[in-house]
Amino acid sequence: MTERLEGDVPVQSATTAASLVRETATLAVSGFGRVGYPKAVPLALAESGRDLSLTVVSGGSVGEEIDTELLAADAIERRFPYQATPEAREAANRGTVAYQDRHIEAFGDEVRQGHYGAVDVAVVEAVAVGEDWLIPSTSLGHTPACVEAAERLVVEVNEVQPLALQALHDVYVPDPVPHREPVPLTSPGERIGGPRIEFDPAKLSAVVLTDRPDSPYSFREPTREDEAIAVNLATFLSAELERNPTFAESVRLQFGVGSLGNALMGELGRIEFGDRDVAYYGEVVQDGLLDLVDDGSLSAVSATSLALSETGQRRLFERVERYAERVVLRPAEITNGAELVNRLGVVAVNSALEVDLYGHVNSTHVDGTHVMNGIGGSADFFRNSPLSIVTLASTARDGALNRIVPRVGHVDHTEHDVDVVVTDQGVADLRGSAPRERATLLVENCAHPSFQSSLEDYVDRANTAGGHEPHETDR
Amino acid sequence: MTERLEGDVPVQSATTAASLVRETATLAVSGFGRVGYPKAVPLALAESGRDLSLTVVSGGSVGEEIDTELLAADAIERRFPYQATPEAREAANRGTVAYQDRHIEAFGDEVRQGHYGAVDVAVVEAVAVGEDWLIPSTSLGHTPACVEAAERLVVEVNEVQPLALQALHDVYVPDPVPHREPVPLTSPGERIGGPRIEFDPAKLSAVVLTDRPDSPYSFREPTREDEAIAVNLATFLSAELERNPTFAESVRLQFGVGSLGNALMGELGRIEFGDRDVAYYGEVVQDGLLDLVDDGSLSAVSATSLALSETGQRRLFERVERYAERVVLRPAEITNGAELVNRLGVVAVNSALEVDLYGHVNSTHVDGTHVMNGIGGSADFFRNSPLSIVTLASTARDGALNRIVPRVGHVDHTEHDVDVVVTDQGVADLRGSAPRERATLLVENCAHPSFQSSLEDYVDRANTAGGHEPHETDR
Repeated sequence: MTERLEGDVPVQSATTAASLVRETATLAVSGFGRVGYPKAVPLALAESGRDLSLTVVSGGSVGEEIDTELLAADAIERRFPYQATPEAREAANRGTVAYQDRHIEAFGDEVRQGHYGAVDVAVVEAVAVGEDWLIPSTSLGHTPACVEAAERLVVEVNEVQPLALQALHDVYVPDPVPHREPVPLTSPGERIGGPRIEFDPAKLSAVVLTDRPDSPYSFREPTREDEAIAVNLATFLSAELERNPTFAESVRLQFGVGSLGNALMGELGRIEFGDRDVAYYGEVVQDGLLDLVDDGSLSAVSATSLALSETGQRRLFERVERYAERVVLRPAEITNGAELVNRLGVVAVNSALEVDLYGHVNSTHVDGTHVMNGIGGSADFFRNSPLSIVTLASTARDGALNRIVPRVGHVDHTEHDVDVVVTDQGVADLRGSAPRERATLLVENCAHPSFQSSLEDYVDRANTAGGHEPHETDR
Repeated sequence: MTERLEGDVPVQSATTAASLVRETATLAVSGFGRVGYPKAVPLALAESGRDLSLTVVSGGSVGEEIDTELLAADAIERRFPYQATPEAREAANRGTVAYQDRHIEAFGDEVRQGHYGAVDVAVVEAVAVGEDWLIPSTSLGHTPACVEAAERLVVEVNEVQPLALQALHDVYVPDPVPHREPVPLTSPGERIGGPRIEFDPAKLSAVVLTDRPDSPYSFREPTREDEAIAVNLATFLSAELERNPTFAESVRLQFGVGSLGNALMGELGRIEFGDRDVAYYGEVVQDGLLDLVDDGSLSAVSATSLALSETGQRRLFERVERYAERVVLRPAEITNGAELVNRLGVVAVNSALEVDLYGHVNSTHVDGTHVMNGIGGSADFFRNSPLSIVTLASTARDGALNRIVPRVGHVDHTEHDVDVVVTDQGVADLRGSAPRERATLLVENCAHPSFQSSLEDYVDRANTAGGHEPHETDR
């Protein structure tokens, strides 16, 4: 059995490790889905009183020690590729932190290429470390790429994260472009790597012991709209599986991170899968999946993070080795990789803020200007999926706000990347349709009745103005 | 040596073959870059006097026999995934033909999945045919997928297309999802298939002999803006190759189809490649590439179509076997495939109509409503490239129209997919930048001086309104 610490590793206090980070460093941290991120060193940095102007890059979202505490210490000047705390969102919208959301799939290569400056230090949470390897904790994310790109490495060994988590990990790291080989993965549950991230031992600058738990996720209870969306999605998918030869034998599913995604995962039992092999190939394991693993509905679950509630995390931790028979954690460049999503034929289900008449989707910017979290992996899956499905409630703010709109204020996914839109009202299957047909399908099938007639009026006026994608006014 | 016709193939007149196409058929045709498309059967259909309502799908753009003549006969009701004639454009904008442009990369799978209905007949141009194989002519496009999906197959053997073209072809067809294996291609010039497309012999319904040449391309002469863009691009790329380890040994380039792309290809000599291996991995071979093949500047050219001018085509036809030492034609799902563009590290250079302050790109819809041609393969390359570059003149209509705009009227490529913008005015390297920084870079470096102050005013007003991607008004 692997020990927490093996060989001659430089154990130090968090404060000492934090002092290795220079004032204007590019700091890469582990973490994805708000788990598996380092806690002690960011807190020590936040409490250091130093005048820091850091560029912080992560795999995905991280917890409050970074995106709340370190941010509040005015230590973060630049932040990529994703954030999910109210404070980080506010800083992005004020423009006081230079933030841009980025495609998860591509972010590892962007870090390797130096888009965010040379990475000075990577601070990574692990369950165990040796002189030239570490075993990640609850997420893999872009930790391999960050470790590879960093000049120095600090490892936080977190003793509340079970050592047994190693049984879940499958660390396969693509070679650098242009020497990259095809990723040899051809089924969702296959293992092509091992539990360890390896590194040049000269990089290992500090090992810090910690016992702070991850910030647990919390999901809201499913709403009536969530339920209606789940029913409409199940009806559509049950028919599609019968019709489409791509799904004759197997179905691989991905659901977006969040309460709607979690609710939909919990309602998978509504879909008539028949005797098809059903697997999950997505970004995160959410609570909704655990029952399906337990009852054998899913033959495999592949993800990069265990984004569970406190209850869900306890449930998994108690039986990690049992779950490891079916659950695999991979680097985000594999879970979200274009070639894998395409090859495995992953059905992608992601939520959105609003959809326009022609199928363009806004999933990030309220009013087109104020960012929520970021695009995350949604476009990685939509772009390469043989069946990409947008799910959203037809209205927001207790029915006051229409979400099927003439024009979206910000485009994250274009008309070319979305096949089907599902709301609480119904389903618009946009495949093989021209723009004017799309408008009709979306208004008739997906819009809320209280907004249908004003949308129909808009469509009439727009069609009079003319064009391939008619709009009432130019710009 | 392969004969034009081998074995017992059902030679028939174009008129007889055309009668196999039922009135409301989904008709799949070969063709990409306006070459290698069938001519005789579409003309016979156009002249048949029948009341046709066809869905026509192709690999990419085709010539006038289809998108002008057959269209003028009112025979086309639906058209995907690309068009490039004035008549087809007008029909799309009037809404009299249901048209949508689609990603080239994904279109073969969309046809296989039945997005455009079951394919009744594929009509394919070839240089030779046997009982269960054909050899394509000047383009491969989505011909393999169309042949695979079609119930019946009609082959036009075109005797003006040299039989020697077979030396260029490398037909590798991915297995259907979910049984798809990694594509075993790891360098631009490698060959992983053979010259033939194979099919179930029961499909072969007619073979038609023809001698109509392809509609030749014509390129406008490079403008002063084209020259300035070429100089700015060369300066940027020369520095980037030195800096970026991805390009330490080799560079693989793609240029968009069209006059600007052709002009930029012709100016590749301006880039300081040093002793790097330089190859082309794109959609089409345009005239600008032939000199570089002849003088040995390019070690390999991989494309799906020979989109040459009449002069260029003659030049290639006279020495096909010589060119075949370095030029490979592949199916479009390989030339544009996400995994290949990523793995090979293709630098993507594509033009656009307009770019907004945050890096969103409109490459298809004038005024946001009127389609030009379509997205084509531009997003296939931009999305998966390690370095995606938009090239455009800073103004249009003799300086009257600004092309660096507050908001684009239609988004084809989002801020996440574009790394660098190059105009005649300069270069904006957007990598690692936040939205407000992007606005400054684009206004200062890329906008035309005559529009800079009004853009600066807009940026000031937008920043006052606030948000992560500030805009003056909502929507």
